[in-house]
Amino acid sequence: MTQKIIKLTVRDIRFPTSLELHGSDAMHTDPDYSVAYVVIETDQGMRGYGLTFTVGRGTEIVVCAVEALSALVVGKSLEEIVSDFRGFYRLLSSDGQMRWIGPEKGVIQLATAAVLNSVWDLWARMEGKPLWKLLVDMEPRKLISCIDFRYITDALTEQEALEILEKAEAGKQQRVDQMLKEGYPAYTTSCAWLGYSDQLLKQLCTDALSEGWTKFKVKVGADLEDDIRRCSLIRQMIGPNNTLMIDANQRWDVGEAITWVTKLAEYKPLWIEEPTCPDDILGHAAISKALAPLGIGVASGEQVRADSLLKFFHQCLSSRLLLMLCMLFLWALQCHNRVMFKQFLQAEALQFIQIDSCRMGSVNENLAVLLMAHKFKVPVCPHAGGVGLCELVQHLILFDYISVSASLDDRMCEFVDHLHEHFISPVVIKNAHYMPPKDPGYSCEMLESSVQRYQYPQGEVWKQFKKQSLKD
Amino acid sequence: MTQKIIKLTVRDIRFPTSLELHGSDAMHTDPDYSVAYVVIETDQGMRGYGLTFTVGRGTEIVVCAVEALSALVVGKSLEEIVSDFRGFYRLLSSDGQMRWIGPEKGVIQLATAAVLNSVWDLWARMEGKPLWKLLVDMEPRKLISCIDFRYITDALTEQEALEILEKAEAGKQQRVDQMLKEGYPAYTTSCAWLGYSDQLLKQLCTDALSEGWTKFKVKVGADLEDDIRRCSLIRQMIGPNNTLMIDANQRWDVGEAITWVTKLAEYKPLWIEEPTCPDDILGHAAISKALAPLGIGVASGEQVRADSLLKFFHQCLSSRLLLMLCMLFLWALQCHNRVMFKQFLQAEALQFIQIDSCRMGSVNENLAVLLMAHKFKVPVCPHAGGVGLCELVQHLILFDYISVSASLDDRMCEFVDHLHEHFISPVVIKNAHYMPPKDPGYSCEMLESSVQRYQYPQGEVWKQFKKQSLKD
Repeated sequence: MTQKIIKLTVRDIRFPTSLELHGSDAMHTDPDYSVAYVVIETDQGMRGYGLTFTVGRGTEIVVCAVEALSALVVGKSLEEIVSDFRGFYRLLSSDGQMRWIGPEKGVIQLATAAVLNSVWDLWARMEGKPLWKLLVDMEPRKLISCIDFRYITDALTEQEALEILEKAEAGKQQRVDQMLKEGYPAYTTSCAWLGYSDQLLKQLCTDALSEGWTKFKVKVGADLEDDIRRCSLIRQMIGPNNTLMIDANQRWDVGEAITWVTKLAEYKPLWIEEPTCPDDILGHAAISKALAPLGIGVASGEQVRADSLLKFFHQCLSSRLLLMLCMLFLWALQCHNRVMFKQFLQAEALQFIQIDSCRMGSVNENLAVLLMAHKFKVPVCPHAGGVGLCELVQHLILFDYISVSASLDDRMCEFVDHLHEHFISPVVIKNAHYMPPKDPGYSCEMLESSVQRYQYPQGEVWKQFKKQSLKD
Repeated sequence: MTQKIIKLTVRDIRFPTSLELHGSDAMHTDPDYSVAYVVIETDQGMRGYGLTFTVGRGTEIVVCAVEALSALVVGKSLEEIVSDFRGFYRLLSSDGQMRWIGPEKGVIQLATAAVLNSVWDLWARMEGKPLWKLLVDMEPRKLISCIDFRYITDALTEQEALEILEKAEAGKQQRVDQMLKEGYPAYTTSCAWLGYSDQLLKQLCTDALSEGWTKFKVKVGADLEDDIRRCSLIRQMIGPNNTLMIDANQRWDVGEAITWVTKLAEYKPLWIEEPTCPDDILGHAAISKALAPLGIGVASGEQVRADSLLKFFHQCLSSRLLLMLCMLFLWALQCHNRVMFKQFLQAEALQFIQIDSCRMGSVNENLAVLLMAHKFKVPVCPHAGGVGLCELVQHLILFDYISVSASLDDRMCEFVDHLHEHFISPVVIKNAHYMPPKDPGYSCEMLESSVQRYQYPQGEVWKQFKKQSLKD
């Protein structure tokens, strides 16, 4: 029986997180974590749920973009879509009129992600499987048919992608079993947002350590003295053997990044994330190179970890080897499409790949990036947090391990412990690992009560704020 | 007397150009040329007009984004804004919540352009000058204070920018006089859109030649046989001494671009514009390199022009010199911000810079790009056409010649002869040159009658289409 999509609704859901400075960083100082929340419905009464993450103002613009895209979805059947998913992806990302306001970037790309996430959710539900299992069970050729290779064939051909997937067939079942038993390793960003007091930071670290967390990320970039104090504090709290990462959220120019990070080197961060503009491929490459000499100075005592990393980089340049020894790595977070990731890889501008389930074009584009990362031998460590990003991206990283990389070395998935209570099937973390979701779908269906309460501006929560502010 | 901005309105104006295939190219096959049209109003009754160009569907999303930005504008005085224009630019482009849905790209960047264009228009009107003259008369330090140097200091410092402007002070008045007398050289794209028949193309070429046009651009990329026929036809029409350029509007992958352009080389195009994804800096660099050997083969007979170009590139790599000899050059059109342009320049990935008055962050960001292009010795040849792009960008290229580059060699500004009749002060073309505007402002005020007639969907023109389609 075919499932014809007959309806698409989108709502603007905002959580007033700015009141408690959850999610604050050097560039986003007052975020209200939000989503554009999409529900599609078929003529057989089936539903698919999708979302894209935003941080407050502007969510209404993404909602408007989803509404514009809905004409390309409503009226199509799920079978028609998935029989040529590449074509459908192209239809959405390359509409002859709408691509002008992107293309494949910014608002229209976020909206594309929300819509396609709902389609993938519907597909997985139809098959009665969690999304990661749908992907893991899919024939390599079928997986490849979901990817738009336009603009990336100079880095990865269809044939190469197919070979990667076919090679990883060996041992798949063991990896599935392993994941079901142990879960996928995670790190936490919940302890050290910029707006948190030292006391709160200490308390959260203590709690996290007792829950088994060993990898911690701290936000930096607003004030150097403050960063030094906070990095020192958190390094003291977690001890020398746990992992610390730092994240500047695009705060610096290229030269500034080099100076600043040099001053934080003594706290031995594993990586510096988003040191500068997310569009600056060559800037990231320059920072990589410039930090290399520093590596020689601060590398002693970190050889064990460095050795374990070496196997991933045996083909890379000497400057990169030096960089590894100093335990400073560059990431890119807000990379908006496969073409940007392609170049970051080609330019050796980052040493870890941070995919995002909502900034790029859904599963389709993430598949392309996972395969390119594998070819370039760069480990993938997803970005998560926000609202629903953990719920979504866990599926992609499970697929990466089981069907692409077959490796856990120096791989981990971000975890932030916020707002999971609003989801029907929230993430399950055990001993600092993501446990594979079991419910069918892509895990981003929200409680209808939450959706109604937090809908902006008409939800109860926002109405109360308005009343209060009128009183004040 | 201060001018406090008390109101901002934005309207969705669409022209049904798809009916006649004006503006059709390999990626935008059915464009309805459109604008998000902004009017700001002060408490003293002064108005500023701004717009950003779009191609139909999706304009409503840009309108929504302008509305979101308006809260950052309304309530401010013009004096407050221009006394710290860099700060105001940063306020709009880096709002703590809205930057997430960019940053500085796509819908939110187009909306920023529309809003800032209206502010620059208001400023020029207040000074009683056309915008180009406002800029030309402005102190170098004041000009610099309008630019946000974030993320570009590794390519251009404030001090370097200041020195460029100060050096160009010499001879400024002569260049002003020259422009007033002769105008700025233009080329035409009006003759050869993809959707035009051969007969129409011939007729338009004949007309253009008789009007004094010597430089022609043709759209390619949809079908190779078709491109060969059309390039051959237009080269026949314009003869061997006039200039032909080709534009693929992002149609190809990197390898495909090389193969395809090789087959069009015999028609001696001066450049290939947008061969691939506008985000692909390294791809453009690779195409540049790969086409170089071809240059040796097809270069004979073009030495005169090549010689005139050589002076601009005396410091560049040998592969680039070879490329020049073959008269094939790469451009980038849809470059969305200064950070992308910075990298295209750093990577030597393009040999001409194509600024746009509406895709980047208005005059402020264009100033940064003009100065970087000058430092990297790459000539600027603006993108125009659409609705109002010619009206706007002529001001920027006049400023470039008078106050930055002081050179016309291998520089020209695109011209498309569409939709100028809707503007209060339309461009004036004489003998294939842009004549400097004389009316105060930024030349993008539209006739209120046009605005009302073409407003989407409630304007008369669109209502009639609706009626008609209901009948059909």
